[in-house]
Amino acid sequence: MTNTYEINENGQMEIGGVNVLSLKEKYGTPLYVFNQNKIEEIASVFSNTLKSEYGEGLISYASKAFSCKEIYRIMDNLGLGTDTVSIGELYTAVSVGFNTEKVIFHGNNKSIEELSFAVKTGVKYIVLDSVYEAQLLNDIARETGKVQGVLIRVNPGVEAHTHNYIQTAKPDSKFGFLISNGDAKEAIKSVLALKNLNLLGLHCHIGSQIFEENSFLLATDIMLDFYKKIKDEFDYSFSVLNLGGGFGIKYIDSDPTFTLFDYQLFIKKIINEVKLKVKNNGLEKPFLIFEPGRSIVGKAGLTLYSAGYTKEIKGIKNYLAVNGGMSDNPRFALYGAKYTVLAAERLLDKKDTKYTIAGKCCESGDIIAENVMLPKAKYGETIAVLSTGAYNYSMASNYNRNLIPPVVFIKNGKDRLVVKGQTLDDLIRNDL
Amino acid sequence: MTNTYEINENGQMEIGGVNVLSLKEKYGTPLYVFNQNKIEEIASVFSNTLKSEYGEGLISYASKAFSCKEIYRIMDNLGLGTDTVSIGELYTAVSVGFNTEKVIFHGNNKSIEELSFAVKTGVKYIVLDSVYEAQLLNDIARETGKVQGVLIRVNPGVEAHTHNYIQTAKPDSKFGFLISNGDAKEAIKSVLALKNLNLLGLHCHIGSQIFEENSFLLATDIMLDFYKKIKDEFDYSFSVLNLGGGFGIKYIDSDPTFTLFDYQLFIKKIINEVKLKVKNNGLEKPFLIFEPGRSIVGKAGLTLYSAGYTKEIKGIKNYLAVNGGMSDNPRFALYGAKYTVLAAERLLDKKDTKYTIAGKCCESGDIIAENVMLPKAKYGETIAVLSTGAYNYSMASNYNRNLIPPVVFIKNGKDRLVVKGQTLDDLIRNDL
Repeated sequence: MTNTYEINENGQMEIGGVNVLSLKEKYGTPLYVFNQNKIEEIASVFSNTLKSEYGEGLISYASKAFSCKEIYRIMDNLGLGTDTVSIGELYTAVSVGFNTEKVIFHGNNKSIEELSFAVKTGVKYIVLDSVYEAQLLNDIARETGKVQGVLIRVNPGVEAHTHNYIQTAKPDSKFGFLISNGDAKEAIKSVLALKNLNLLGLHCHIGSQIFEENSFLLATDIMLDFYKKIKDEFDYSFSVLNLGGGFGIKYIDSDPTFTLFDYQLFIKKIINEVKLKVKNNGLEKPFLIFEPGRSIVGKAGLTLYSAGYTKEIKGIKNYLAVNGGMSDNPRFALYGAKYTVLAAERLLDKKDTKYTIAGKCCESGDIIAENVMLPKAKYGETIAVLSTGAYNYSMASNYNRNLIPPVVFIKNGKDRLVVKGQTLDDLIRNDL
Repeated sequence: MTNTYEINENGQMEIGGVNVLSLKEKYGTPLYVFNQNKIEEIASVFSNTLKSEYGEGLISYASKAFSCKEIYRIMDNLGLGTDTVSIGELYTAVSVGFNTEKVIFHGNNKSIEELSFAVKTGVKYIVLDSVYEAQLLNDIARETGKVQGVLIRVNPGVEAHTHNYIQTAKPDSKFGFLISNGDAKEAIKSVLALKNLNLLGLHCHIGSQIFEENSFLLATDIMLDFYKKIKDEFDYSFSVLNLGGGFGIKYIDSDPTFTLFDYQLFIKKIINEVKLKVKNNGLEKPFLIFEPGRSIVGKAGLTLYSAGYTKEIKGIKNYLAVNGGMSDNPRFALYGAKYTVLAAERLLDKKDTKYTIAGKCCESGDIIAENVMLPKAKYGETIAVLSTGAYNYSMASNYNRNLIPPVVFIKNGKDRLVVKGQTLDDLIRNDL
């Protein structure tokens, strides 16, 4: 398994063979850096495992985790599909010629404009989340002279988090139709009546940061039992099963270490369950879709900052401020997310000082990580925050009118800019 | 007091005399709308009260609440100052010729580039938050041949929230030097030794969404007792006192109604305390600065959305999705913030249905408001979320590659675009 970074003989971080000091000099900080080899490695493991263990199916990269032109090019080149959740993501994917036969369009409240754009650009799978949406889409498809392929998002009543899951009869979610209370069946009936929609199958997504397979196996059982029920009652066979994503990544030491082999095993177990249930329920083998996002890009990415001022409040804590914050990484502020933080220029130095890593935003809650051990900080040195590849750039804002940092990819020892950093003029571009 | 909106005879919302339907038709949704008359009214009340009740001083608009070219023009025209917290905010202010004699530059981790830019553009007050920063700034000022005016951010140990406050000996904050443990005195000593800095006074900021004055009065006492102590020990008199901001606004019915008169009274009480303490402590009357942000723009702004799909989960709740979400208003996701939500085209209709207002982002936590009563929603109708003038546009992101909405100001019955909405091409402008 490719490491996101290595330690060179001087104790400095090297990402895919490129020294952090040279990255800092060339691009400045804050900087989002991705090890492209690592992205491709794990994407290929998902893809190859699905192919070898199951056959017909698609790994669809959930691009809300990290979206820009280059990531779509990479996924398209690898033969993966992609999930999009807005006209913005779809527009970006289409702008680099992404094969829309492998595009899935999600969202609980897609606008007419978004649905029209998806139909027009040939998106193969539009995932419906409302009967009214189905009617709107049917109208659009009819006017365009098309029959649009659709899935319906259902809620199997399994909610998974990290190491545990709950099965509940009526979970509260803005997403999906509940199977348990009959809503899903009603939705299917409605969609089947719409002549310009081709209902290919169902979609579910049970959570995020999941490390245990039992919740997935349970969801698989519920979905395929429901497939059988629909077949029996409606004499209708679904040809596609989309089990979503949510595979976890390691952020901090106490998270499980998930190797490529573990991801492979995880997928294999689900595939085996699908095969078993398909056989037992007398179904035809569906085209199988998984939608990993975070697990493909999360650990491959990290953020480089420069150390700013420190503040030692005796008896309370030491703050180390970096030159970014919740504007480029709002996950602590949003979720209390935890990160591993390193002094990237001296990884072998003794970590003798406990810091709370604060951002530069004018807000007390602007924290990146609490209670991390580092060598005593030096102004200007490089601070690396690991596993920021997912939901950092994609959630970045101009809060405090801070600039959104550039994104650099590294492949085979060569770095290249894939998203330019914002300039001050970008901030006022739309101001009148 | 100018209302943000009125109800016309058809039960429709009019903002500063402009019907929401015409705004929707002209600019689309989501749309940030501000009643400029309301902004100017409250800004003037703060400004006039300070002038008439105290004399020399400055109301400095805290632009992190809402920053764009036009708001700086308005504040500059009204004779107010402005707080900036980054090179981005300062650049925007300077781009419209804001009088930098009235600019305050804050931040716990200002970079060398930011300090240099502030010195170069003639910012009158740079608020120091680190001794190391003071040294860097002194070097920059010396190289520029200037003596830079500075304040020091101190922590008086008063923390205020809405209706209560606590006084604590050692509060944990990334901001300021504690007075109680001697850190502030040490910082003052260090800064006084730097020849290219002119230490004008101290700054404190005790919290946000504050409705009661006692915390401010206590902070005022602590600050001016400290001014006396410094005078006695160092034979040094501060000429400026900056008491920060944090005045609350009404978001929902259970928040206090704060009229213009209440804000006026609030400021008056603090001013009286300043005058009393100045006299009792034998000090010279300092130039007095307040920094309201949210209280100037918060209630003047609202967001217009279009109603999307509804989802009724029997026995659980009803969701109404709007065509925006945490990408344009992350405050529920960040703080569990509460908002008042209205069906803007039929304000007089019976509110018979309870909704959770969800956004369109692919995230369960993408909620705007919970448990609001509305008439049964109609697809496409206008939904208004009130009091979004502060920390909405300024915190907006392209999460899910949703577009950041345009901003419209209304003055004297006329609407005008002040920030253009993003386009799809804006999303990929920096993508390579």
